[in-house]
Amino acid sequence: MRCGIRNLAEDLPDADAVAVCTPTNTHAQILLDAAARVKHIFCEKPVELSLERIATINAALEKAGVSLMVGFNRRFDPNFLKVHEFIKPGKIGAPHVLRITSRDPAPPPEHYIRASGGIFLDMTIHDFDLARYLMGNEVLEVYTKAHVLVDPASRKAAYGYDQRLEVFGSKGMVTVKNNTPDNHVYLDSVGTHSSWPLNFFMERYTESYLREMQGFVDSVRENNPVPVTGNDGLMAVAIGLAARKSAKENRPVRLSEIH
Amino acid sequence: MRCGIRNLAEDLPDADAVAVCTPTNTHAQILLDAAARVKHIFCEKPVELSLERIATINAALEKAGVSLMVGFNRRFDPNFLKVHEFIKPGKIGAPHVLRITSRDPAPPPEHYIRASGGIFLDMTIHDFDLARYLMGNEVLEVYTKAHVLVDPASRKAAYGYDQRLEVFGSKGMVTVKNNTPDNHVYLDSVGTHSSWPLNFFMERYTESYLREMQGFVDSVRENNPVPVTGNDGLMAVAIGLAARKSAKENRPVRLSEIH
Amino acid sequence: MRCGIRNLAEDLPDADAVAVCTPTNTHAQILLDAAARVKHIFCEKPVELSLERIATINAALEKAGVSLMVGFNRRFDPNFLKVHEFIKPGKIGAPHVLRITSRDPAPPPEHYIRASGGIFLDMTIHDFDLARYLMGNEVLEVYTKAHVLVDPASRKAAYGYDQRLEVFGSKGMVTVKNNTPDNHVYLDSVGTHSSWPLNFFMERYTESYLREMQGFVDSVRENNPVPVTGNDGLMAVAIGLAARKSAKENRPVRLSEIH
Amino acid sequence: MRCGIRNLAEDLPDADAVAVCTPTNTHAQILLDAAARVKHIFCEKPVELSLERIATINAALEKAGVSLMVGFNRRFDPNFLKVHEFIKPGKIGAPHVLRITSRDPAPPPEHYIRASGGIFLDMTIHDFDLARYLMGNEVLEVYTKAHVLVDPASRKAAYGYDQRLEVFGSKGMVTVKNNTPDNHVYLDSVGTHSSWPLNFFMERYTESYLREMQGFVDSVRENNPVPVTGNDGLMAVAIGLAARKSAKENRPVRLSEIH
Repeated sequence: MRCGIRNLAEDLPDADAVAVCTPTNTHAQILLDAAARVKHIFCEKPVELSLERIATINAALEKAGVSLMVGFNRRFDPNFLKVHEFIKPGKIGAPHVLRITSRDPAPPPEHYIRASGGIFLDMTIHDFDLARYLMGNEVLEVYTKAHVLVDPASRKAAYGYDQRLEVFGSKGMVTVKNNTPDNHVYLDSVGTHSSWPLNFFMERYTESYLREMQGFVDSVRENNPVPVTGNDGLMAVAIGLAARKSAKENRPVRLSEIH
Repeated sequence: MRCGIRNLAEDLPDADAVAVCTPTNTHAQILLDAAARVKHIFCEKPVELSLERIATINAALEKAGVSLMVGFNRRFDPNFLKVHEFIKPGKIGAPHVLRITSRDPAPPPEHYIRASGGIFLDMTIHDFDLARYLMGNEVLEVYTKAHVLVDPASRKAAYGYDQRLEVFGSKGMVTVKNNTPDNHVYLDSVGTHSSWPLNFFMERYTESYLREMQGFVDSVRENNPVPVTGNDGLMAVAIGLAARKSAKENRPVRLSEIH
Repeated sequence: MRCGIRNLAEDLPDADAVAVCTPTNTHAQILLDAAARVKHIFCEKPVELSLERIATINAALEKAGVSLMVGFNRRFDPNFLKVHEFIKPGKIGAPHVLRITSRDPAPPPEHYIRASGGIFLDMTIHDFDLARYLMGNEVLEVYTKAHVLVDPASRKAAYGYDQRLEVFGSKGMVTVKNNTPDNHVYLDSVGTHSSWPLNFFMERYTESYLREMQGFVDSVRENNPVPVTGNDGLMAVAIGLAARKSAKENRPVRLSEIH
Repeated sequence: MRCGIRNLAEDLPDADAVAVCTPTNTHAQILLDAAARVKHIFCEKPVELSLERIATINAALEKAGVSLMVGFNRRFDPNFLKVHEFIKPGKIGAPHVLRITSRDPAPPPEHYIRASGGIFLDMTIHDFDLARYLMGNEVLEVYTKAHVLVDPASRKAAYGYDQRLEVFGSKGMVTVKNNTPDNHVYLDSVGTHSSWPLNFFMERYTESYLREMQGFVDSVRENNPVPVTGNDGLMAVAIGLAARKSAKENRPVRLSEIH
């Protein structure tokens, strides 16, 4: 499997599958090109920034009989998988409240942000997908409150990469704490000290990336449905667009308002 | 109930019970005096530093029909009680290893140490009693390794009062962590920080002192056996003396060697 | 100090201060009565359910030179005080997000709820006050999402009384975890197990009630301003009313809309 | 690099280094064979069960100019490395007490134990090496207490693989807790539950095996001294033999007694 912007026809004459890990604005062309040559495509999130274009891509791929897996790697994280294992068989009863904490240690470079679609489409889109996945339900309405507090394009946690989650249900609650590089605790004459959260996504989500790609390869090999579909890619972007609209208009926005 | 060195005949003509919280070397006289006037005595640990004198006191009190409760307050601590609740009904199976961590934040004043009998009789005696209480068994042998590392009369944990415990059994393990003054966690750009252990015994064991005294009062009022007996006081000192001997001779010492 | 609905003139001819711990709908009359006889009043929250009546009471007491302390005990909790100690000197930088988790183990009896003003005025009012206290700022806008999920008057956490908090700032974060009755950890062949959160407010907030009352007594004795004022009581109710309105109208409500 | 019992001359005519991961009783022959053909050998612990044979091997390899690295992988574990980072620059002051908890989830098969040298040479030998490594000092004396409590060849923790450690020093303490497969916490109407420790050494020490082998390869490539030497292999076995003698004779045994 190779990653990059290439002339797929020449470079991958005998590939069964491709993984598209290029910038978002190149996805549409690459995906449609690839669909003419391979049967299986993995594409990094977000597939596109417009719902219309995603719908077009999804339809084209479906027509061509090509399966598309979207790169929401957090579904494959051991912590979040564990939460799913608790929710699915009803161990927490009916899930009432899901609370995801997702904070980056530092904002990405400005040129990245300029093309990224903004915080709701490049960063919290992971959380939107995770919400759908864990709750097993579609989002109906979004209310967002956003302020520029650090610099005009920023998200920053001074203490590192904060990736926690809790689901409260009628019979109990399951939470996940941050992963840390080690489990030491140091006590001195001042207090008790331990490690920072793992920093950054490459360290924190290593295991999920491996399992994600394994999931793709397995579905290709065994001819099974991909674990994260083109529709999942579409819905997460729809929530992101609703979040953006809500932040702008300071009101709850229903998903049905987003086209 | 009053505490102090007094002429009990004059001061407490109508008391049912006394609590003796004076220095160890005054216990024998006060206990024997008190036994002539009241039916119930609470005495701080250690009752005495010699097994012979403790045996004499225990015999005299028994002959006089006076009940003696010895002040091993840790048996009344919510953490250690919880451990007892796990051990007793066999939740950890057969207990194989008990490990008590007991470290003071600073050594006591020199004049106190001079009359105290040393670290095994004034401090770790609490742990010796706790071991008997939790394991529900007598100690057969003691091996002690001791060094003077801080100053010639010292025990000191730079990070405060360390009071932990774990019991490993054939079916599981139960541990207790230190109590802290609060449950905050602070994360900054350096790491994760939380509170020191509660410092010192007055703060850490407040609840156990209250419950201990309540236990004494209840046994007096309801004419029940005291929860910690004169024999418990005797056995803890015997272990302390064995520990002292072991440290001196660098070999395991059997309790049967101690008289 | 005595608690109850009494004819204050007869019962407390020589009292300096009173503590009013009666149902909310009796507060107005008792406070105004008391103001004629004593100089210092402690009153449980909420003082009243209408902003107008609270304003009237506050004005009357002020005119009479009587000091009113409102019973927001959580300001005196060691955990939350610790958070305040971090925020105040800027240890977390500028505070950006405060997240309070406040869940009861079971709903109160129906007759209580009928007169209580509802969840935003009888329960989360504590959190509204805590938010003002910790952030050192007034609330400008409230957005609330509420559903009846358990029964038509309910708030319930199956795992007990959940009282956590975190403040995220530009330089760090401080959180408080739940307090537990003990610090044991039990490991068996299934997993790792520890205690429930302390349950319910009488156990969880014992320390804060003691410190709160001490704070009132100290301010009376030393003729100092009370630590929680009539205006604090007014503002918390205003936020509660905004929360109610927001939940009803499903939109963010500005405090300036509440009268 | 390949692992196995082979005719090294035929199989590895052009190898620079070999890793010997065969049973202990095959080590001597393989190591001496390998020394004639390669310059660098990695050998699993223990090198041999007799000090004399290890000394002979070490001498032969040294004479042949061959470097030997012994497989004490725990020196490369992120948790224990962190502890080393605290001890080395004096962050805990002078280290006074090291306490290693090392419990297996289940005993190895009987045939393994028969040739393994017993618990002190096949299992706790890791801890003996870790002690030397972390304390930066040689062991002078060993006191061991051992009982057969599970079955005649057993070590078993019902709750999994317990790998903890703490070092207490004059200025502070550093501990490491067990690693877990995930960081979830589940609260229900019974209590608070979280994951078992990672189980077993393949999962718990994956990272250390990778770093260990990387350390060997790096030392080969860069012609540097190996990070764990033949003498380290010798000393750990000496401590193991002293531990065995101490358990048998129920007395502290000095290392100088072991030949």
